[in-house]
Formats: sequence, C-alpha cells, structure tokens
Amino acid sequence: MPPRRKPPRKSYHHGDLRNALLKAAREVLEERGPSFLGLREIARRAGVSAPSAYHHFESRDALALGLAEQGAAEMAGCLAVTPGEGVYALLPYGEAYVAFVQTNPALYRLMFGEGFPAVSHYSQAIRDLRQRSFEIMRANLEQRLPETHVPIAALFLWAICHGLGLLLIDGQVDTSPAPKDLVHQVLKLAGTGLNVPAV
Amino acid sequence: MPPRRKPPRKSYHHGDLRNALLKAAREVLEERGPSFLGLREIARRAGVSAPSAYHHFESRDALALGLAEQGAAEMAGCLAVTPGEGVYALLPYGEAYVAFVQTNPALYRLMFGEGFPAVSHYSQAIRDLRQRSFEIMRANLEQRLPETHVPIAALFLWAICHGLGLLLIDGQVDTSPAPKDLVHQVLKLAGTGLNVPAV
Repeated sequence: MPPRRKPPRKSYHHGDLRNALLKAAREVLEERGPSFLGLREIARRAGVSAPSAYHHFESRDALALGLAEQGAAEMAGCLAVTPGEGVYALLPYGEAYVAFVQTNPALYRLMFGEGFPAVSHYSQAIRDLRQRSFEIMRANLEQRLPETHVPIAALFLWAICHGLGLLLIDGQVDTSPAPKDLVHQVLKLAGTGLNVPAV
Repeated sequence: MPPRRKPPRKSYHHGDLRNALLKAAREVLEERGPSFLGLREIARRAGVSAPSAYHHFESRDALALGLAEQGAAEMAGCLAVTPGEGVYALLPYGEAYVAFVQTNPALYRLMFGEGFPAVSHYSQAIRDLRQRSFEIMRANLEQRLPETHVPIAALFLWAICHGLGLLLIDGQVDTSPAPKDLVHQVLKLAGTGLNVPAV
C-alpha cells in the first residue's frame, strides 16, 4: 500500500480546533491506549499542523489534562440522575458511574493517571477533577445520613463503583449472561449489605 | 561523581538466583515503577551478568509473571485469617486484602497488568493468579449464603476491596487522621449496607 498522502489542512473557527483536537485525542485513547497519545498524531487526525496543535496543548500532559477535564464534566452530567427509593436511594448513581466507566474505559483510566504518572501524582488540577463525581455522591448522602457518617459512607460508595468499574473494564468478570443486571445486583448490596440476600 | 564500578559477580546455588532476581525486581518495582523493570538493571542489582538473568527470565513479561506469581501466593497467605462474627464475618478478609494492597502498591498494580498490557490482556496465567484471592473469599461466602447469591456477593466484596485499595494507594483519600480505622469503618459497611449507620 502506498503511504497515505497528507490530508489537506483544515481551517477551524477559534475554539473549534481545541475541541477537534480533544475529539481526535479521545479516539486515539480509546482505540490504541495512552501510549499512542502524541500531539503529532492528534494533529494529523484533526487535519492541522503540529504547531497549530501545540498552540492549544503545549505538552502531552496538557492534552491529558484537557481530556480529564472533559471526562469529569461528562461524568458529572451522567450522575445527574433521580435517586431511587429507600435502601436503594443511591443505586441510580452507582449504575450511572459504572456505566460511564464501561463506556469510556481508557478515558476513565486516564482520569486516574494511568499512563500519565506525572499527571497522576503531581497535578492538583486532575486530583480536583476526580473529586467532582465523589462530591455529587457525597452531597446526596448528606441528605440521608447523619453528618458524622457521611465521609465513610461516601468513600464506601466510591470504592464499590471504582472497583466494580475497573474489574469490568479489565475483563475480570464474566459478564456474558447479563452484564447490566449484574451491575444492578452488585450495587444493590451496597444498600443492603452482604447478609441480606440480593433478590 | 565518578561512575559506579561494576560490583563483583556473585555466585548462587541453583534456584537461589531466581529468588534473588525476583527480590531485586520487586525492589525496583516498588521504588521506581514498572517502566524501570528491565532485566539488565535487575541482573546488576542481584550482582550477576545479564545472560545469567535471561537464563531464568527470558523476557520482561516473564519477569512480570514471576512477580505476579509471588504476589498471588503472598496474598493468598495474607487471606488465611480467622473470620469475624455475624454480619462482620468477612471483615478480616477485606482488611487483609486492603492491607496487602497498601503494603505492595506497585506489585498489586502489576498483578492487574498495569505497565504490562501484554500480560494483562493475553496471559491466562496472570488471569488465573488474580482469581486466587477471589476464590478464597468466595469459598468463605459459600459457607454463609445461599448458593445462588454467592457469585454476586463475591463480586461485591472483591469490588469494594479492589476499589478501596486502589483509591488508597492512588492517594485519593485523606488518611491522615486514622488510616487503619478508616479501612475498618468502610469495610464494615460491606456487611451492614449503607442505611445502617457505621458505629
């Protein structure tokens, strides 16, 4: 096969190029993983020159931060659900959280710094973004539990959603019979505890 | 500073070199992360030539598999605890699991394939190893719950331990007041569910 010709340069309105670059970055991320997330490749996909891309994202870490910001905003949107009833009040939040992880596996991993140790360990911005979804769940718990119980309950909920989401996207769980119901059943136990049979 | 001189070659009894290489690999892994896990560096630390190291581990992936095997065996040992009482029967397992993750953060991540995508996605051996701790918890649940509830309950327990462990080693949780008690309180909720106040 002959080498692909360079695509013609595209022109973008101010602001649109940033979004086009993020869109291209997200495609690369989900298709090929974080190690392929280079600015040259992203620029090529968006049909612009590398310097144009550098104008918006000065480094690979800046691009990762942009993606994480987008992910955090989308995730917060997904968590805008109606609470359930009684002991299952938080179930819709858990399901929305895990569904986001399953729909955006590489983006979710990136939001936790995988493939980007500098972002993971040093960037306060990324850390703050990660807390956003946690805060939504915590705010809901504050309406339901005594104040002193909220921090532990919120961490419990976050841990179960984070752990279940990661086990699922890692392929650790055989989801062939009924994946959606499986998540539902597991998350119900967060409401009832282990000793109440999951019906 | 002048370059460090090569250390004198050590000699090992048969079998001991493999353990010495794994020990060196584990030090590198926890100190510097998976990207520094090269056979030359490991050989240097163990005080032997690179070909001697290759004799035991033919590739970086083989070394990772050796580390994951060691980790799975140690983790199974850590989970040999006495069950708790009543609704908290599984609490000691959860605490032992999370303690293992906190003590061996990089090893635990490696056991889930981080930094080693080939190992993560293609190696059935690693996959089987990861299931070992899961099976220990499942066997315990089988003695306590109706058979049909065990798969969901086991996945629930695994998800909470996996998620809590990862959030802690990612530095997502402020553990400055009382880290040990925090894990205890969060895991108690796995027994009682969210709506029973954690005392």
